[in-house]
Amino acid sequence: MQHFELTILGCSSATPTSNRNPTAQLLNIAERFFLIDCGEGTQMQLRKFKFKFQRINHIFISHLHGDHYLGLLGLLSSMHLLGRKDDLHLYCPGELQEILEVQNKHSQTFFNYQIIYHPHTYENGKLIMQDNKVEVRTIVLNHRIPCCGFVFTEKQVPGNILPEMISKYNLTVEEIMHLKRGSDLTTSDGTVVPNAEIISNLKTPRTYAYCSDTLYDEGLIPYIKGADLLYHESTFLHGMLDRAKQTHHTTALQAGTIAKMAEVKKLMIGHYSARYKDLEPLLEEAKSVFENTVLAIEGETTEVGQ
Amino acid sequence: MQHFELTILGCSSATPTSNRNPTAQLLNIAERFFLIDCGEGTQMQLRKFKFKFQRINHIFISHLHGDHYLGLLGLLSSMHLLGRKDDLHLYCPGELQEILEVQNKHSQTFFNYQIIYHPHTYENGKLIMQDNKVEVRTIVLNHRIPCCGFVFTEKQVPGNILPEMISKYNLTVEEIMHLKRGSDLTTSDGTVVPNAEIISNLKTPRTYAYCSDTLYDEGLIPYIKGADLLYHESTFLHGMLDRAKQTHHTTALQAGTIAKMAEVKKLMIGHYSARYKDLEPLLEEAKSVFENTVLAIEGETTEVGQ
Repeated sequence: MQHFELTILGCSSATPTSNRNPTAQLLNIAERFFLIDCGEGTQMQLRKFKFKFQRINHIFISHLHGDHYLGLLGLLSSMHLLGRKDDLHLYCPGELQEILEVQNKHSQTFFNYQIIYHPHTYENGKLIMQDNKVEVRTIVLNHRIPCCGFVFTEKQVPGNILPEMISKYNLTVEEIMHLKRGSDLTTSDGTVVPNAEIISNLKTPRTYAYCSDTLYDEGLIPYIKGADLLYHESTFLHGMLDRAKQTHHTTALQAGTIAKMAEVKKLMIGHYSARYKDLEPLLEEAKSVFENTVLAIEGETTEVGQ
Repeated sequence: MQHFELTILGCSSATPTSNRNPTAQLLNIAERFFLIDCGEGTQMQLRKFKFKFQRINHIFISHLHGDHYLGLLGLLSSMHLLGRKDDLHLYCPGELQEILEVQNKHSQTFFNYQIIYHPHTYENGKLIMQDNKVEVRTIVLNHRIPCCGFVFTEKQVPGNILPEMISKYNLTVEEIMHLKRGSDLTTSDGTVVPNAEIISNLKTPRTYAYCSDTLYDEGLIPYIKGADLLYHESTFLHGMLDRAKQTHHTTALQAGTIAKMAEVKKLMIGHYSARYKDLEPLLEEAKSVFENTVLAIEGETTEVGQ
């Protein structure tokens, strides 16, 4: 099975702690490496976990609070200094271009590679990137400033055709291609043969949904429904619900509720307030609603769909 | 004796490594805490070394290459989130104000404290800050973009008057004040009595000079002459002199030469290229010219004047 795995690089909320960095995640889908948010220190985290960051060609920035993008210019500069020539695609609030260009103007820096900007349009379900392995869509989150989440879905990996079926149904090349991608077969007499009778080892495409930062918002549910892995911010315990509402964040209980209502397979919580030295109470609170919950822990890698 | 000590927070050059952060230093002069440059990750380094960063009221930024200031907005934001109300003084290239304001505009952030900007005028020996304990002057460095170094000098700490001298010379209050600060005494008959005969325990004010980033430039020498501690960048070994010239940096041999010519008491080298995993060759090279050289090492504190 192709890789579909998430590595946490930073899991703190706005104020980092001595052992928690601001938000950044690295997603590997079939050796495509996607960086999701890029808080201060992300390039050091990538080095710490021995990841060659020139392999990243697509960076997704949810919004322009500093804890989600202040590591970006340092990373882009290091990519330049280390000889990058390949285009880099940046899916981000359009204003980020002005921020980066003002800084490069004053440092008199000109990168030896192109940044291709893909400014957010803040539409639910909008396809913003795809290739032959993966597609990425936006979700509109409910935060103090415009903010997008992202849903990463692998494309159907073709299954294996049972050899005896080719002659049994006298299959054409075109029929075989459709069957390997999950279609059922309709024979010349109109009989429908279920895919599973002809194709083996066909996997359901997996999905990773990233939701940070946001108020509790059931409006997200249609767009993250059934995800194999949902990352949902859980900045506070539910005892701090007022503070969560005031700052447009979510409690662990609420994150569990969203996971349950969206019928996801697994929930990962993160974006922890610096006040929580011990994360277990956050985990327990989310688990009280949705059992299959895990903590985002820096340096840990989670296989999506397991 | 009052504190005058330097703690290294980051010592790498532009590309940080897994164990070396970009430039930042914390200087404590008589419980005034000065932050000198603020590379990415500085706030995490301050936390790691258990320093309360609200005690910093003065930040000095040498120039606008990212490895010297990209940690600033994160630190300023955390100061805000943690309840800062006190003014913060920022001595920096004037363009930094535009950079910070563009970012705060797009994140819709308004700090609950004032930033007082003191833009560099790039003059040698210009007094940019003083209080009753310390004064700070700029040095113009020779880099690819406008860049200042800083010279921090403690003010004269009054000595102790030998009690019997008050009646012996029939000293006025005004004469005592001048004597305690180092003046000699001129009696009514014109005799000059050396300060040391009347005052004990008078210390020579100490000086810390910070030079990063710069080409080898003997023009700096008059402004750092006799410093108790000189920090001078040493990005490369001398075998890479061409690269040093091309990038407007200095070799370890050149840093030692500047220290020797300026007759400083101690040299600290830093701003190491990421290519050097082992720093000993840099130290040995500088020592071949100037023996009393030490390495900038993150987390280590050096008492200035010892």
